[in-house]
Amino acid sequence: MSYVLYYAPGAASLAVHWMLVELGVAFRTERLDLAAGDQRSQGFLQINPSGRVPALVIDGRVYTESAALLMLLAERHPEAGLAPAIDDSRRAAWLELTVYLANTLSPAMRDWFYADQDGEPADAAAIRRLAQRRIEGAWGRLSTLLGDGRPYLLGDLMTTADLLATMLMRWSRNMPRPATPWRHIGPYVVRMRARTAFQDVCDREGLTDWRND
Amino acid sequence: MSYVLYYAPGAASLAVHWMLVELGVAFRTERLDLAAGDQRSQGFLQINPSGRVPALVIDGRVYTESAALLMLLAERHPEAGLAPAIDDSRRAAWLELTVYLANTLSPAMRDWFYADQDGEPADAAAIRRLAQRRIEGAWGRLSTLLGDGRPYLLGDLMTTADLLATMLMRWSRNMPRPATPWRHIGPYVVRMRARTAFQDVCDREGLTDWRND
Repeated sequence: MSYVLYYAPGAASLAVHWMLVELGVAFRTERLDLAAGDQRSQGFLQINPSGRVPALVIDGRVYTESAALLMLLAERHPEAGLAPAIDDSRRAAWLELTVYLANTLSPAMRDWFYADQDGEPADAAAIRRLAQRRIEGAWGRLSTLLGDGRPYLLGDLMTTADLLATMLMRWSRNMPRPATPWRHIGPYVVRMRARTAFQDVCDREGLTDWRND
Repeated sequence: MSYVLYYAPGAASLAVHWMLVELGVAFRTERLDLAAGDQRSQGFLQINPSGRVPALVIDGRVYTESAALLMLLAERHPEAGLAPAIDDSRRAAWLELTVYLANTLSPAMRDWFYADQDGEPADAAAIRRLAQRRIEGAWGRLSTLLGDGRPYLLGDLMTTADLLATMLMRWSRNMPRPATPWRHIGPYVVRMRARTAFQDVCDREGLTDWRND
């Protein structure tokens, strides 16, 4: 098996990049400079017509959608234990949380950052207001979930949902109300950022802020 | 194992209800009248604090998020073949499409129908404009996918992604540009609606429009 990840530093590819490092599998990367418009280049549009990262090439075929790629990698590498097995009682909660992050927090983040690109610039302020409300609502929900003292979102087991959630929390760092001041999210983020693989992927992507060190 | 589905006619619970019928497993239903505010009743908020359907009780525990419930049911009943198995080469495409429907089309539908409930009423028109653009973009993408003559979204295999997509297509029936006039979506919808289980679930929920008969 071979993996090639198309990524941009700090973008939605970060969770998948992090996962590949956690897994310790062999992979190759291709870096895109979004500010320079690499995502709209002919070459990349042939890889992913939507012009978005991540795109992960697996044995010559291209796949997208970070939440899907995380689930897929967890299934292909069950020995890493980054998802509850199908017969594990935590499987349902893992699927539920993954979909919640994908259908609530992720699109609100898209709205926050791309409202004026995806829609009419005149509509952007209205779209961002609702996005902010939804994002802060999600921090409240995730903080409550962590409030029983569990180390990870699913309990004692660190899963792909933690990689996805931590990436989304990182994106809020310059928002009016970032995720980290929420009571139970702050300590959780410190715990997630302490992972060797997180520090490694930040080094690989050249990310210097939002680190423990 | 026991299943209890909390549903409202035609709501996001429809795909899960349909799936339970496709599977032919034993289940019980509890019907909510959204117009009467059943979803905000004390009794239901104890089941699902977010006040949304579907909520599926599995062996006494409550789970939500229709896309997650479809994936879970497919895993719990692999003999029904409603998802590619983990070692099937179509698995990656199934995960990708499921996440795409969950993180792009579903939240745009939420915006279209609930913009003034979820956000400020004054912002609703702006939010709906972007939602409509995204929804119509999704019909274009799904129509293109079906354009090679495949009977189902993943090819020859009918999967949970088809149940989810068909439900979302149904929701567009009174929109300015519903899904069905898209060239390859119309015949697809007729094919999906011809399924005995679809007709059965429409009867169970009392849905009289958007049927082949």
